[in-house]
Amino acid sequence: MPLSKAEIQRLRSLRDKKHREELGLFVVEGEKVVAEILAAGSAQKFFFAELYATRLWMKENPKAADYLGATEVTVEEMVRISHFPTPSSVLAVGTITRLPLAPGALDLGLTLALDGVQDAGNVGTLLRIADWFGLDRVVLSPDCADLFHQKVIHASMGSFARVPAHTADLAAVLAQAKVPVLGCELEGDDVHGLAALRDAVIVVGSEGSGLSAAVKKCVTRSVTIPRFGGAESLNAAVAAAIVCDNLRRLTGR
Amino acid sequence: MPLSKAEIQRLRSLRDKKHREELGLFVVEGEKVVAEILAAGSAQKFFFAELYATRLWMKENPKAADYLGATEVTVEEMVRISHFPTPSSVLAVGTITRLPLAPGALDLGLTLALDGVQDAGNVGTLLRIADWFGLDRVVLSPDCADLFHQKVIHASMGSFARVPAHTADLAAVLAQAKVPVLGCELEGDDVHGLAALRDAVIVVGSEGSGLSAAVKKCVTRSVTIPRFGGAESLNAAVAAAIVCDNLRRLTGR
Repeated sequence: MPLSKAEIQRLRSLRDKKHREELGLFVVEGEKVVAEILAAGSAQKFFFAELYATRLWMKENPKAADYLGATEVTVEEMVRISHFPTPSSVLAVGTITRLPLAPGALDLGLTLALDGVQDAGNVGTLLRIADWFGLDRVVLSPDCADLFHQKVIHASMGSFARVPAHTADLAAVLAQAKVPVLGCELEGDDVHGLAALRDAVIVVGSEGSGLSAAVKKCVTRSVTIPRFGGAESLNAAVAAAIVCDNLRRLTGR
Repeated sequence: MPLSKAEIQRLRSLRDKKHREELGLFVVEGEKVVAEILAAGSAQKFFFAELYATRLWMKENPKAADYLGATEVTVEEMVRISHFPTPSSVLAVGTITRLPLAPGALDLGLTLALDGVQDAGNVGTLLRIADWFGLDRVVLSPDCADLFHQKVIHASMGSFARVPAHTADLAAVLAQAKVPVLGCELEGDDVHGLAALRDAVIVVGSEGSGLSAAVKKCVTRSVTIPRFGGAESLNAAVAAAIVCDNLRRLTGR
């Protein structure tokens, strides 16, 4: 049965954050990323609510197709519902789940906090880094790229489905934190001199302007990565990864 | 005097690698990146041969405009010559300079080698990382993104004009190297256990497929970044940065 016009319209509308929020749904497209999220599904934080796929995809992924009650669509229909000029063979729809941040949550384990990181690719890469280093959670300020933006999900390479990520008023939650709040900054203590920390928050700012004034006030220690050459700065994701690696070198698991 | 049709055609053609190579020229657009490259100009590796700018840019950058004999263009002309849908106020043309790699060059200092890194943004970020850590050079295999692609230059944030970068048959030059060749891989020795190395090559592979078979044969030591969570891999630029940071922690300047 072909998709109705209203159905196509609804799926296409999920490109916009406004419509995603209204409907409480988000879209993921692409064989690789859908497979990654299905594979990460043991945590079952992000169920796919709907799945649209070509006959070929259905044939190659019988379990997923069956489990999700997938809708078979033609390549022409896929072109119409896809958010990309060149559609893939599968489009999944998930339910937006906003994880609440419990009071005191930052006081246990390692948290990566993103302050105004607006580039969706960077946010996705940061989720992947938090996942690699086994951080306990990621907290995003409300002016970061939307967690349910396809580019974020793609760049996270499946980590989106594994790392608990929360959106919160960053300065407010950091002000309550009892653990060290390490700010990645251009001026600060050498990251190689850090002591072992099992509970801490690592905060990175936006590419252009660094940490916001309100968040800066909550930083208990500025850390910096020693520079040996001419570049003015490091990408936020690269800086965060280096700080995580230094912490893990000291504390291990 | 308005730009001729042929002139506009020539500038537009520099989008394609084929035409860049034919004419030996490349294009850089954008106030920020042009300013960064002008500021990095003390090294004078990449002279701008031509510069096109709006009256406003000329007024705000009198020295550069004068020095380069800049051509004032209207906003309409800028729209026509720009490689982007939304043009900026300045477009510079540089001369492609291919730096030869002297025999034995890899045996002194630290080299970052890129094996088939096809994403232009990643190549630019890797140049920026090599610059930050004061590496002596970057060597790219011929199947990497073109060094003179605008996206590479943009992502490098000016490091393009500071770090000596060479394109070479990577396996051939690595086979001649007398220094340790460290391969960033998923299986290898813990990067935290590296000994201090003042002369070495760090090799990173492509996002999708890692190091090529020919390059792998030249690796004298595989190094890996300890993983604590669920992500399958780290981005090539992130991995390279962490290895550089660990080497610099041990050797300093």
